[in-house]
Amino acid sequence: MICVVASAPSDRVRVRRLPARGAYDRATIDAILDAAPICHLGLVEDGQPFVVPTIHARAGDVVYLHGSSASRAMRRAGEGTSVCVTATLLDGLVLARSAFHHSMNYRSVVLVGRARAVVERDEKLAALRSISEHVLPGRWDEVRAPNEVEMKATSVIALAIDEASAKVRSGGPLDDAEDLSIGCWAGVLPLRIVAGAPIPSDDLAPGIALSLAVERDRRFDAVAAPPATRRDRDR
Amino acid sequence: MICVVASAPSDRVRVRRLPARGAYDRATIDAILDAAPICHLGLVEDGQPFVVPTIHARAGDVVYLHGSSASRAMRRAGEGTSVCVTATLLDGLVLARSAFHHSMNYRSVVLVGRARAVVERDEKLAALRSISEHVLPGRWDEVRAPNEVEMKATSVIALAIDEASAKVRSGGPLDDAEDLSIGCWAGVLPLRIVAGAPIPSDDLAPGIALSLAVERDRRFDAVAAPPATRRDRDR
Repeated sequence: MICVVASAPSDRVRVRRLPARGAYDRATIDAILDAAPICHLGLVEDGQPFVVPTIHARAGDVVYLHGSSASRAMRRAGEGTSVCVTATLLDGLVLARSAFHHSMNYRSVVLVGRARAVVERDEKLAALRSISEHVLPGRWDEVRAPNEVEMKATSVIALAIDEASAKVRSGGPLDDAEDLSIGCWAGVLPLRIVAGAPIPSDDLAPGIALSLAVERDRRFDAVAAPPATRRDRDR
Repeated sequence: MICVVASAPSDRVRVRRLPARGAYDRATIDAILDAAPICHLGLVEDGQPFVVPTIHARAGDVVYLHGSSASRAMRRAGEGTSVCVTATLLDGLVLARSAFHHSMNYRSVVLVGRARAVVERDEKLAALRSISEHVLPGRWDEVRAPNEVEMKATSVIALAIDEASAKVRSGGPLDDAEDLSIGCWAGVLPLRIVAGAPIPSDDLAPGIALSLAVERDRRFDAVAAPPATRRDRDR
């Protein structure tokens, strides 16, 4: 096991370009993994890389992914082929005076290694719960837990956080000194993911209150507040 | 050239899981590539996949990516190694009555193939312009164009949209009939990327008006309106 998450990144995950943006401490890595709603899973088939979006959850030193048991990507990943899990949060557009110095503010984690299939029932159920909690904290306890057929239809893989690095850019544009006199606006347009008003399912029975998990969720705030509250605020 | 973007997807990009969610028409693929602010680039090194977030732009039948000329990933990609470009838009959390039927609404494109380095000056400049326009339409004309040193310091690669597929999920949860009587809320929590108030650079000279490109941009609306307008609206 090459443990590089502390201060000695392996060559495979060391941030080579702009090393000042690299971070290898677990707190930074964990915070990004936890905040990113989805990740991208990379694997190789016949020399061809494939990258697919998927949901993940971190539980301690492990990242869990899940998918259909019929999914070829999940099967291959569970067989121990080399994979890469990348989680990215886009924080803003960085607008400089020169085209060249334009950039983005972001936080990303690149995690590489070989995954294992999670087959033991208790760990698999706990992993599914952690994935559900990652998507929407509190939701798992509101809904019906997986039955045995559903457990069989779902594959879970685990990837240890052994070889990982984070890359973070924040702050304003870094223009060349000679460009500062250019009379154009420069700065950052911050970006974030927000929730709109919850849309009830067509088949929702009348009188069923909004999910408490949705109501209490503060990650995607701004437009997320239920209609009543928003009207109150506008008064 | 295996042209699979019309109606005959190659085995490599055919959507195997839930094929009803697969789309191979160019209009769908192009719309997702154009709407996604960033993409994830996958490539292979010594059998290990690596996935990194990056900015892209579509120009006709080609996707351009750029990066530092010192970047190993860009060099390898430009040498014609197999790559994968995946663009994903997260549209919402799909909250079902069972844990199993939870899902996400999303639009994603997976594009595979071998890229080529863009070395011809006019194409390279046009590619950089299209990447800038992808990030923020209208910005290119506000700022200083790249000089020769900057052109040399920047690598551009082009990947033809030959083998690509799109995957789209939309709409509410699809619960099992026997779960409809469960008294918990079900529906969709829509998610989108919005912009906050633009943050001027610390070194911005007084009196410089906000970038017209920022002001006119409607992709990340909601919180994007400048403060004055917001105060007006709250009155």
